[in-house]
Amino acid sequence: MRKIRYQVACSLDGYIADVDGKTGWIVDEPSIDFGALFDQFDTLLMGRRTYEGLVKDADGFWGKTVYVFSKTLRQEEHPQVTVVSGNPQPMLNEMRSMSGKDIWLFGGGELFQSLLALGHVDTVEPAIIPVLLGGGRPLLPSPAIQQALTLTSHRVFPSGIIWLEYTIRKREEASA
Amino acid sequence: MRKIRYQVACSLDGYIADVDGKTGWIVDEPSIDFGALFDQFDTLLMGRRTYEGLVKDADGFWGKTVYVFSKTLRQEEHPQVTVVSGNPQPMLNEMRSMSGKDIWLFGGGELFQSLLALGHVDTVEPAIIPVLLGGGRPLLPSPAIQQALTLTSHRVFPSGIIWLEYTIRKREEASA
Repeated sequence: MRKIRYQVACSLDGYIADVDGKTGWIVDEPSIDFGALFDQFDTLLMGRRTYEGLVKDADGFWGKTVYVFSKTLRQEEHPQVTVVSGNPQPMLNEMRSMSGKDIWLFGGGELFQSLLALGHVDTVEPAIIPVLLGGGRPLLPSPAIQQALTLTSHRVFPSGIIWLEYTIRKREEASA
Repeated sequence: MRKIRYQVACSLDGYIADVDGKTGWIVDEPSIDFGALFDQFDTLLMGRRTYEGLVKDADGFWGKTVYVFSKTLRQEEHPQVTVVSGNPQPMLNEMRSMSGKDIWLFGGGELFQSLLALGHVDTVEPAIIPVLLGGGRPLLPSPAIQQALTLTSHRVFPSGIIWLEYTIRKREEASA
């Protein structure tokens, strides 16, 4: 079963973008091997806003297969991606049962919220940037159900970034 | 110069209390020596709401000197604490120049926001609890000025709590 992993840069106070939707506060970290990072995934899942922010910059989405969750985008106008506009449950079940690399839940927070509620997120992997933003786009928008996590790894970088990995605890585990 | 340290338990998504103001989601961690922790401080700073939440439970505030920041509390009704209702700047300058242990910015987020804006916070020390709350009382309420931090230490506990320590970067440092 392929994993769906929410890997994202996040401020200490829990925002993935500032109030203007920008990410210029993400500090450089030369020791992160982004090639190796990207190579763990062959598929990206993203919301419409994240997709529209990327289209200008991303060069063919680094060769990954991209699914964009949106009720408004028209598939025929976005042939380079697959637009998911209906109930994502059957598609996610099928995608996860196919062979392949892990699946990157690329953002934003609203998509995380939806897939978490559907039980389709395996890990949360925030790279905590050493900054307080005091507002912006949240890691997990409200309202959401309280979700227990298990810390599985942490890495500290010279820039002060601390990269955490958690698995989502299933409800029966969490209440045990 | 005594330090003012914002030491607080926080969810991964940046909340210090859930939507009901509760902290029952803070997991137990027997290996934390709370005696040694409390012994680092002789003075607590807190907002009115935090104070009112504590009055019912705290037994004499563990022998600490307590300052409550509030424009509505009447000093004569709260003889066990010092109510700070005016401009806190002179009082903070004086307190920090006196000899003594470190000063615990006990919460909540609004007081942190105020003292941060005044340049009177030295460190932010969140114990990140392995949980997503999806809403609640923020570590740092909006709006706030973006604040760069320097990671100075991290400790990982068996429960999955990760306790981070950051110093507040001065403006000139942050822009250097």
